[in-house]
Amino acid sequence: MSQAEIGPNRYGKSAIRLVKIVRNPSRHAVRDLTVAIALEGDFGSSYVDGDNALVIATDTMKNTVYAFAREHLTGPIEEFGAVLARHYVAAEQVNRATVTIEEHEWRRLGEAPGAFSRDGSATRMAVVVGDAPGELTVDAGVANMILMKTSRSGFAGFPRDQYTTLPEVEDRIMATKLTAVWRYAGEPAYDESYGSIRATLLDVFADHHSLSVQHTIWVVGRAIVDRHPEVAEVTMTMPNLHHWLVDLSPFGQPNEGEIFVATTDPHGLIQATVRRGD
Amino acid sequence: MSQAEIGPNRYGKSAIRLVKIVRNPSRHAVRDLTVAIALEGDFGSSYVDGDNALVIATDTMKNTVYAFAREHLTGPIEEFGAVLARHYVAAEQVNRATVTIEEHEWRRLGEAPGAFSRDGSATRMAVVVGDAPGELTVDAGVANMILMKTSRSGFAGFPRDQYTTLPEVEDRIMATKLTAVWRYAGEPAYDESYGSIRATLLDVFADHHSLSVQHTIWVVGRAIVDRHPEVAEVTMTMPNLHHWLVDLSPFGQPNEGEIFVATTDPHGLIQATVRRGD
Amino acid sequence: MSQAEIGPNRYGKSAIRLVKIVRNPSRHAVRDLTVAIALEGDFGSSYVDGDNALVIATDTMKNTVYAFAREHLTGPIEEFGAVLARHYVAAEQVNRATVTIEEHEWRRLGEAPGAFSRDGSATRMAVVVGDAPGELTVDAGVANMILMKTSRSGFAGFPRDQYTTLPEVEDRIMATKLTAVWRYAGEPAYDESYGSIRATLLDVFADHHSLSVQHTIWVVGRAIVDRHPEVAEVTMTMPNLHHWLVDLSPFGQPNEGEIFVATTDPHGLIQATVRRGD
Amino acid sequence: MSQAEIGPNRYGKSAIRLVKIVRNPSRHAVRDLTVAIALEGDFGSSYVDGDNALVIATDTMKNTVYAFAREHLTGPIEEFGAVLARHYVAAEQVNRATVTIEEHEWRRLGEAPGAFSRDGSATRMAVVVGDAPGELTVDAGVANMILMKTSRSGFAGFPRDQYTTLPEVEDRIMATKLTAVWRYAGEPAYDESYGSIRATLLDVFADHHSLSVQHTIWVVGRAIVDRHPEVAEVTMTMPNLHHWLVDLSPFGQPNEGEIFVATTDPHGLIQATVRRGD
Repeated sequence: MSQAEIGPNRYGKSAIRLVKIVRNPSRHAVRDLTVAIALEGDFGSSYVDGDNALVIATDTMKNTVYAFAREHLTGPIEEFGAVLARHYVAAEQVNRATVTIEEHEWRRLGEAPGAFSRDGSATRMAVVVGDAPGELTVDAGVANMILMKTSRSGFAGFPRDQYTTLPEVEDRIMATKLTAVWRYAGEPAYDESYGSIRATLLDVFADHHSLSVQHTIWVVGRAIVDRHPEVAEVTMTMPNLHHWLVDLSPFGQPNEGEIFVATTDPHGLIQATVRRGD
Repeated sequence: MSQAEIGPNRYGKSAIRLVKIVRNPSRHAVRDLTVAIALEGDFGSSYVDGDNALVIATDTMKNTVYAFAREHLTGPIEEFGAVLARHYVAAEQVNRATVTIEEHEWRRLGEAPGAFSRDGSATRMAVVVGDAPGELTVDAGVANMILMKTSRSGFAGFPRDQYTTLPEVEDRIMATKLTAVWRYAGEPAYDESYGSIRATLLDVFADHHSLSVQHTIWVVGRAIVDRHPEVAEVTMTMPNLHHWLVDLSPFGQPNEGEIFVATTDPHGLIQATVRRGD
Repeated sequence: MSQAEIGPNRYGKSAIRLVKIVRNPSRHAVRDLTVAIALEGDFGSSYVDGDNALVIATDTMKNTVYAFAREHLTGPIEEFGAVLARHYVAAEQVNRATVTIEEHEWRRLGEAPGAFSRDGSATRMAVVVGDAPGELTVDAGVANMILMKTSRSGFAGFPRDQYTTLPEVEDRIMATKLTAVWRYAGEPAYDESYGSIRATLLDVFADHHSLSVQHTIWVVGRAIVDRHPEVAEVTMTMPNLHHWLVDLSPFGQPNEGEIFVATTDPHGLIQATVRRGD
Repeated sequence: MSQAEIGPNRYGKSAIRLVKIVRNPSRHAVRDLTVAIALEGDFGSSYVDGDNALVIATDTMKNTVYAFAREHLTGPIEEFGAVLARHYVAAEQVNRATVTIEEHEWRRLGEAPGAFSRDGSATRMAVVVGDAPGELTVDAGVANMILMKTSRSGFAGFPRDQYTTLPEVEDRIMATKLTAVWRYAGEPAYDESYGSIRATLLDVFADHHSLSVQHTIWVVGRAIVDRHPEVAEVTMTMPNLHHWLVDLSPFGQPNEGEIFVATTDPHGLIQATVRRGD
């Protein structure tokens, strides 16, 4: 007899690519989303018995996203995510629905009514989790924003053992591909909050003196928590994309912080949550 | 005064690329690894105070991996991971060290002593977690193994609502890029266990009749748990890489399960753990 | 006896990643390049005899790029490419040196002297070919600029055979990831030319009524040739990244050019040169 | 009046993903292709006048590939490519049709009639060019085959200038991601030729002593030309994926060709054709 049992499980549809053209009389607007749906709940029999009676097909999820987009994608992605999450937790077998949405931004080209260029600088994202019987958690953030500090960034005072060769530096390049996701307490005006939190993030990143990537996460995260009462916590993931000073001395040249080689492998990887204390 | 405090956090080095040539007298062997180290512990002051006194530099981690590889990378990656994990949890400020290792396999070319081709069919992986004061958890698995069933796979009996258009099918292509990670209870002979669990996985995948991706996860996972007493649980992640039957009727042709379009977006995504019950 | 002989050949170094920080007193500037060098010439003996006496090591090329960057990377990438190309064709065994440079753009963050975000919207590129005994050809362009027209784009009047199912449409989404490379006649002020040609490209893309991707290439290319006397010809590569109207009728909804699925596979691919006639 | 005229141009459909299940009575076979079609010919009016009367829609190309696959994909990809190329050059406006096919290989899992794992080791490819009024050129090859030599590979005797720091080595790792494409003279049995040429390639790669990547291309290419009379020429593209010996001396350890760091950026890139002389 089998000793096996089913443990934690989830399923859904990922990478649903959706473009909505809002045909305003004078000019178009573009909404360009990638949506993922994941469900948890009473799905044990679909595993153990191969019984699909409760398995909402992931193809149906895709159809639902497209059909809902026409009517409900009229505001921020957080609200569209909430509509989808509520739809799924309304199904009896669903205990939790996680809706992840990335929005790819496009810039209007001049005054043309319908011409755009993709702004590849960062991706806005939202994660809406619906729990039965209807509670919602809303996270929002930016993904893959590439940032660099060429001044006011150092790394020193770290422990040295027999395997340590890294010199201490007061001045280095710090570069990263930042993903920052914050949790909202309450229901702010999502577009305004997104814009102002993003601005805080960039302002503080630009202006602070960084003693390490960890320190940067703290300084930026603390500012987000302190300046934005609607934020309960923020989690940042910051790879350290190393830029190494090239040794030009074999060629008889100095190199005082001027010529660097950019690398991706290996990279430091720092992740932390900064939260509102009691 | 700030309301912010530091929450959960971890840091380390990722994507450390390491090749070791074992220079046996008659012929070489190749070990080709990608290693990542992540530490958790008393690192709050590195965030809040910018104090690096306890921050083992990620550059030092990289050096340590290379230096340890020379002496300690003589057996399975699970054992190399354990050596690294023990090294890090021995540091007072570290509560947990997670060592993730992928091993990329190479096939010997004929009888040549030192010529190889990369076997891109799947990646062996291990995740070793060391917790202070020295407890180890060892997970192992395969990543990104692309599999397909062209017979004995269907999907029917799922609920239909107004957004359901998917037909029920008794016979479909099921294709996936499988990642399966299992947790060891005890300390088996890692290479032998890996080989035999992988064989079970492939055998059962090939031979069962699948009623859904969920069902496949169960049938394969149950077999792994039942046939391999050293496995406490196995977690499988199976995207459903859809193959859609092409409608050839506009061209006056039948298409009885013959011509398909392979797609990657969107994909179903099913993840579940099968574990040994009491 | 072997019948084999060596035919056309080239070699060099690719993916040289270089960041230069220009440390102006009040604030920094960032130059972020990816450089590739390829040489052609009298290298037959390196193949046939394994004689490396004339083979400038690709590692030396990398060093040269870094060393030259310190002194010579002070203006447009076209000029830096020319310095490198001239350096290589000065070697007796080199008949042709091709220097390809991509410049990744960074936007300054506010007023900070040294903080930047990567502008992922497009990549500026230059290809400088030096031919012995010193003639230079300079191409410049943009790579991977993602553009979309949501109005004034159609595709109709194409031939229909038994395999044609595409409907004729007067109004469709046209999206592309454009690479456009133009050849300079003479030596313009490269930065100014780049800026104004790029502006022409975007203006005309936005404003014209497209009858096909081919037609768009012509209209944009013609404008570049006609408005910019320094351009001898321009080659455009335009994948047609299809956006398909979703059929919402099963859900009782209309869809008048509103909800689309964005796809990447398969894609149309159109490439053409527009040149200045006699 | 415009000075512009249309220059060289081509268009078509890329990334057509096609899976065919051959339902033999006892067990299935899988054909998994990625197909691209590109046409050249009398298409000037589609650019200059926006007249699509001669523009075979790329959507029609996709349909044609699927419809033809059912009947004609019964043998080697070279023959399927020839059928498609002939179909397109039969159209009056087409002067040249280039059909590029990649075949992704799957390994049967045990004795199961319809279960497979993807063999990610290399991709077989064919390029068939049809020229009006019907002449065919057939190229075939392997793409992205990752190979490594850990012995019998060196690089020495290259010129040293002020920018040269690379040491001469008699023993190094040589690793590459090889693409090799050969042109057939005549019409061999394509599957047999592919298999035996691929075997020659691997045998010679494994067995020869390499003095440089260039030398390897020559030795391998010469063997292909000499041993396979059906081959007119072979073009190889070999990035040099550098493996650098790690300096372990700071840690008091020797490193005699044992521990390497694998890199991808920057890489050497060598491309050459070896052809049958007169």
